[in-house]
Amino acid sequence: MKEFSSVLVLISYAYLVDSSPSPSSSSLSSSDTTHVRPPFPVVKITFDHVSNVFGICLWILLGILAKIVFHLSHRLTKKFPENCLLIILGIIVGVLLYITHLEEEKRIYILNSDIFFLFLLPPIVLETGYFLPKRAFFDNLGTILLLAVLNKLFNTMCIGLTIWAFGKTTLYGGTQFDLLECLLFASFITAVDPIAVLATFVEIRVNDTLYIVVFGESLLNDAVTIVLYRMFESFLTIGQDNLIPMDFFLGFVSFFVVTIGGIVIGIIFGFMAVFMTKFTERTPVLEPLVVFIYAYIAYIIAEMTGLSGILAITICGMMMKQYVEYNITKKSMATIEYVLKMASSIMETIIFMFMGLTTVSEQQTWNTGFVIVTLLSCLIYRAIGVALFANLANIRRLVELTRIDMLIMSYGGLRGALAFALALVLDENLAPRRKEFITASTVVVLFTVFIQGTTLGPLVKLLNVRRKQIEEPTMSATLTNRMMDHVMTCLEDVAGIAGANSLRNKYNKFDHNYMKKWLLREQPQEKLDLRLWQTFRNIDLQTAIKLHEEVPGAKQITTSQLPKSQTLLAVVNPSTTNSRKASIISTILTKPDDIIIIPPTNNEVVSLTKPEDIKNFLDANMFDTHRRASIYVRGQDEIEKDEDLDPTIIHILQPSAIIDSPNYMLEQSTDNLPRQRKNRSDSTATNQLPSNDIDKCRF
Amino acid sequence: MKEFSSVLVLISYAYLVDSSPSPSSSSLSSSDTTHVRPPFPVVKITFDHVSNVFGICLWILLGILAKIVFHLSHRLTKKFPENCLLIILGIIVGVLLYITHLEEEKRIYILNSDIFFLFLLPPIVLETGYFLPKRAFFDNLGTILLLAVLNKLFNTMCIGLTIWAFGKTTLYGGTQFDLLECLLFASFITAVDPIAVLATFVEIRVNDTLYIVVFGESLLNDAVTIVLYRMFESFLTIGQDNLIPMDFFLGFVSFFVVTIGGIVIGIIFGFMAVFMTKFTERTPVLEPLVVFIYAYIAYIIAEMTGLSGILAITICGMMMKQYVEYNITKKSMATIEYVLKMASSIMETIIFMFMGLTTVSEQQTWNTGFVIVTLLSCLIYRAIGVALFANLANIRRLVELTRIDMLIMSYGGLRGALAFALALVLDENLAPRRKEFITASTVVVLFTVFIQGTTLGPLVKLLNVRRKQIEEPTMSATLTNRMMDHVMTCLEDVAGIAGANSLRNKYNKFDHNYMKKWLLREQPQEKLDLRLWQTFRNIDLQTAIKLHEEVPGAKQITTSQLPKSQTLLAVVNPSTTNSRKASIISTILTKPDDIIIIPPTNNEVVSLTKPEDIKNFLDANMFDTHRRASIYVRGQDEIEKDEDLDPTIIHILQPSAIIDSPNYMLEQSTDNLPRQRKNRSDSTATNQLPSNDIDKCRF
Repeated sequence: MKEFSSVLVLISYAYLVDSSPSPSSSSLSSSDTTHVRPPFPVVKITFDHVSNVFGICLWILLGILAKIVFHLSHRLTKKFPENCLLIILGIIVGVLLYITHLEEEKRIYILNSDIFFLFLLPPIVLETGYFLPKRAFFDNLGTILLLAVLNKLFNTMCIGLTIWAFGKTTLYGGTQFDLLECLLFASFITAVDPIAVLATFVEIRVNDTLYIVVFGESLLNDAVTIVLYRMFESFLTIGQDNLIPMDFFLGFVSFFVVTIGGIVIGIIFGFMAVFMTKFTERTPVLEPLVVFIYAYIAYIIAEMTGLSGILAITICGMMMKQYVEYNITKKSMATIEYVLKMASSIMETIIFMFMGLTTVSEQQTWNTGFVIVTLLSCLIYRAIGVALFANLANIRRLVELTRIDMLIMSYGGLRGALAFALALVLDENLAPRRKEFITASTVVVLFTVFIQGTTLGPLVKLLNVRRKQIEEPTMSATLTNRMMDHVMTCLEDVAGIAGANSLRNKYNKFDHNYMKKWLLREQPQEKLDLRLWQTFRNIDLQTAIKLHEEVPGAKQITTSQLPKSQTLLAVVNPSTTNSRKASIISTILTKPDDIIIIPPTNNEVVSLTKPEDIKNFLDANMFDTHRRASIYVRGQDEIEKDEDLDPTIIHILQPSAIIDSPNYMLEQSTDNLPRQRKNRSDSTATNQLPSNDIDKCRF
Repeated sequence: MKEFSSVLVLISYAYLVDSSPSPSSSSLSSSDTTHVRPPFPVVKITFDHVSNVFGICLWILLGILAKIVFHLSHRLTKKFPENCLLIILGIIVGVLLYITHLEEEKRIYILNSDIFFLFLLPPIVLETGYFLPKRAFFDNLGTILLLAVLNKLFNTMCIGLTIWAFGKTTLYGGTQFDLLECLLFASFITAVDPIAVLATFVEIRVNDTLYIVVFGESLLNDAVTIVLYRMFESFLTIGQDNLIPMDFFLGFVSFFVVTIGGIVIGIIFGFMAVFMTKFTERTPVLEPLVVFIYAYIAYIIAEMTGLSGILAITICGMMMKQYVEYNITKKSMATIEYVLKMASSIMETIIFMFMGLTTVSEQQTWNTGFVIVTLLSCLIYRAIGVALFANLANIRRLVELTRIDMLIMSYGGLRGALAFALALVLDENLAPRRKEFITASTVVVLFTVFIQGTTLGPLVKLLNVRRKQIEEPTMSATLTNRMMDHVMTCLEDVAGIAGANSLRNKYNKFDHNYMKKWLLREQPQEKLDLRLWQTFRNIDLQTAIKLHEEVPGAKQITTSQLPKSQTLLAVVNPSTTNSRKASIISTILTKPDDIIIIPPTNNEVVSLTKPEDIKNFLDANMFDTHRRASIYVRGQDEIEKDEDLDPTIIHILQPSAIIDSPNYMLEQSTDNLPRQRKNRSDSTATNQLPSNDIDKCRF
């Protein structure tokens, strides 16, 4: 039934596609040259001016269909990862197009590098940047940089030289390769692909460190790839004999220009986007668009100026995520997240389908020796490089990477559409062996995605690699983590080292003193913390119900302790607080606006009359550090879990419950606050919150 | 400060735009022809392949900026409607582009008819179709059709002939106009523009009938405009002398083909989209995309085959809205609505800006006589036509249109981008007076948008036209309306007339028996009605709290009536129900799954153990008719009001309250059910629900 529906839709489309481009008998576009009297056109078919858009729509539709069908049949997706199935589908479509001789129309359907870089890549990278677990990323930044930069350079040089050296033998059937050409090829065949890594690692759910190291590497090596690719391209343009040392120096300089330029553009546009959302109070529907358009412009400007667009849009997304949620409405926030997931999901689907299609449609030259040498050197040097630089990274790491980690890291270095797209862009004048390169890239990409991608999951299971923790860390773990941060910062201060912890401390101060003041509509403290209040409210209600459910005799005692007069506002009996000594907060949370506090008789008792005061009090006493962020895992099921909190229920439920132990209140609030702050600092955690999270707060 | 920010952004962009296209000294794209050694490019600027996308991004950004700034300064928007300000901004940008001699780049920035019809129009029309108040629309369909078809024909003929007749005098300075040319011009200058009508009427908030009649006319006359435009174009191609009667007949036929074709395409794709969402349970992120892509494909296919794209996408949107919300998740639903509002809002902004820009940039020929004759005949014939056909419609209308209504209807027939875009598409070979036509269209559009648009609001106030009711209709009004529907259906049945009411009744039966079965994942009855349950739950809780708050003596009596053993599940004391006679439902709503019902001792008592049973019981007793749908009014503030209901609170709150009057329960349920159903049948009403709606249910 389900398959039938999709087949039905496909057939109806195929019919439409087939019939539309053919010049219908009734169509006639004002051909005044013929002397035959043109008939009156009842129906006028014009395909040309919509063919591009129509083609894109059909691809999107095919992508949606494919995803739906794959997800419906569990048997398929259990055996093969989704991206493999999509590549196979692309190959089938390619073969069909070839058989039906639609080659002339085909040109708009193949993976064009402009389409890839302008439309398909940005949404995916923006989504990953937006949902990037910042803490984990920055904690592992050293390792990531080692892998993304040095390992990448090492790999490029080794692979390039190896391929070139084997070219001197007869292994390639006499085909000669230029050294620069080989290095150019190596520069993109070593590019670990963020899309392939994401698609594979998300399904496997390895632990946070492993995931962020491989994924961070794939994000950051884009800059290095671009620099190396463009450098070798320029060297080829200049000609091997004309090269002077200055060129190498400029190539070295351009690495920093591309990287730092990309980061700066990302920060500037992120800043502008957040700043703009400061003023969207009266135009909330436009808020998601502000986020999307600034991120996209950052990407385009970076691409236009030859800087790293991937870095720019990643940084821009991270920056916006950090601040934008304080300014915009909850609905806008939800829409941004949903649309990002939607766009990246469909773009990913299309990329993999395109890859399959291009494999068939692009002209290729098969060279067995060359393909084998490329594939083997990719695998071997990846393993060597990862082992080398991971061990180097271990010198400075607190939690060392184990050998199994390294194995997974090297095995998980999947190549994907990025390498493929760069191979397609190659200029045949510069690289006469372009067709061999495309074939080799295809083989490497398919090998990594199919063989490595499908076996990575079983391998992780076999080696018993620590998986991602699904459940929330306990309260005590969170507190311990935060305390450890303090201790580390303190130790660094004492030792006089400017380590990661004191840097983070400094950034937090800067963030609080300047960034938030410039960028946010209102300071975050003043913003009402709905989840916190709702939890309190629920506790109140439960208390009321519990009291009510108890045996009437017991209840009578409880209620008799209270003054009888209040109906809407509940108060705490001063006599109980009176008898205690200090630091006991006695608030009854009725509504944010009308909290009633009984002024304590002795000054030692802390009085907190407003929500902000409570938060400030807790902030002051607990100091501001961040919990270790958990990894964001992309997946559709999580969207459902992220249930909104409904502010209306605060209004619905009458404020009339009584907490008779003030101590209990304080406990509850400290328990809730870090939870809440965590949700603020990275909503990745929010995504993983099980929907009945608040249930845990029950007592 | 706010203006500063936007200026800052603009300047930074202007800088980027200015610097990018100029061939930078460091940029050098492999020019092998020169023998000078090319330097190593540290930064490589390539503007060409992104210029289109970049231009679009800048326009979107400018649109967002303009909207934000206009909404921030209340003084401006109070005096001028937003669309006027946007046109002025467009004119300013056009003048700036002209002064700075960016004419060569200009081409990508002007209102290209392809861009208009392919990208700008569809989101707006989809949004209006999606949120169209179906009941009001179909109730007034007769009037709308009279205005959209016959009035349109009448206007086209009269204006065409008038312009042609005046051409025989010396009023146009000797310029001669062909009759067919005049009719071609009249065919699009009479097109009432949905975008302009929406933008103006939304701000004024006239009553439902007036709004839907004018807006419905603007939507439906698109088909007639297309047919007439293409017919006269074909007649011109054929040549005035070669025309045979068959051509007129074919033109008449093509009207039906275009209209019915558009509707059929809309229905087919709407059906396919809803059918597809049946299977998206495991891929919920793709659901919004399914809705968007099918609607867009429907539009494109209709445009491609020369059918009415506007009709197709409107019908598709209406169709999807009707069923899709049963299948997809709440988050997807919210995203669809938010994204539609966002897209249509920005597209509308861009269209008005483009219109201003094109006014300046397009080559025009001013002909005072022609412009005056066009403008006057547009105004006069509009008034005559509306008076004529509204009186004709009044014969069959229950609620007659007053003279004031007719005045507003004729005054509110604004022309906009549609007429303008069609003028721009004109082929100069067919219509040698194209430039005069563009000028006259510009004047008419600007006159209607500026003069009529700005004075419509004051006029409505002056004439004391009935405004839109903001508050919800009362329970009794809703019930009376529904009862009236029954009476009308009944009367029609008795009289043997197949009127609107029995037609609706038949459609509802068809809808229930076939459409819903084919299209929905599960029948709507089985779907848990969260709002209903939540309200019950809140009532339970409030009862618990109230009981608790009462004086202990009274409480003791209440609780002593109940059995003591239950902690989680509350029951109704059978003794109270026992003493009553019939039709008293005693359920305690704990969770949807575990409702406990005390089996009644005598069979006369209705037992409803499941939510479906309760709904079915009420359905059976109240019969299924629809309340008169209130008009959907687009506006951003409403989005905030539409707060989601949080299903988690059902889990959070322990089921432990007791209702001791079963009668009360029944009252509450009948009170809530129509409310709920109304939310189902048109969520336009949901949008208007004040956020504290449920507060009303307090007792």
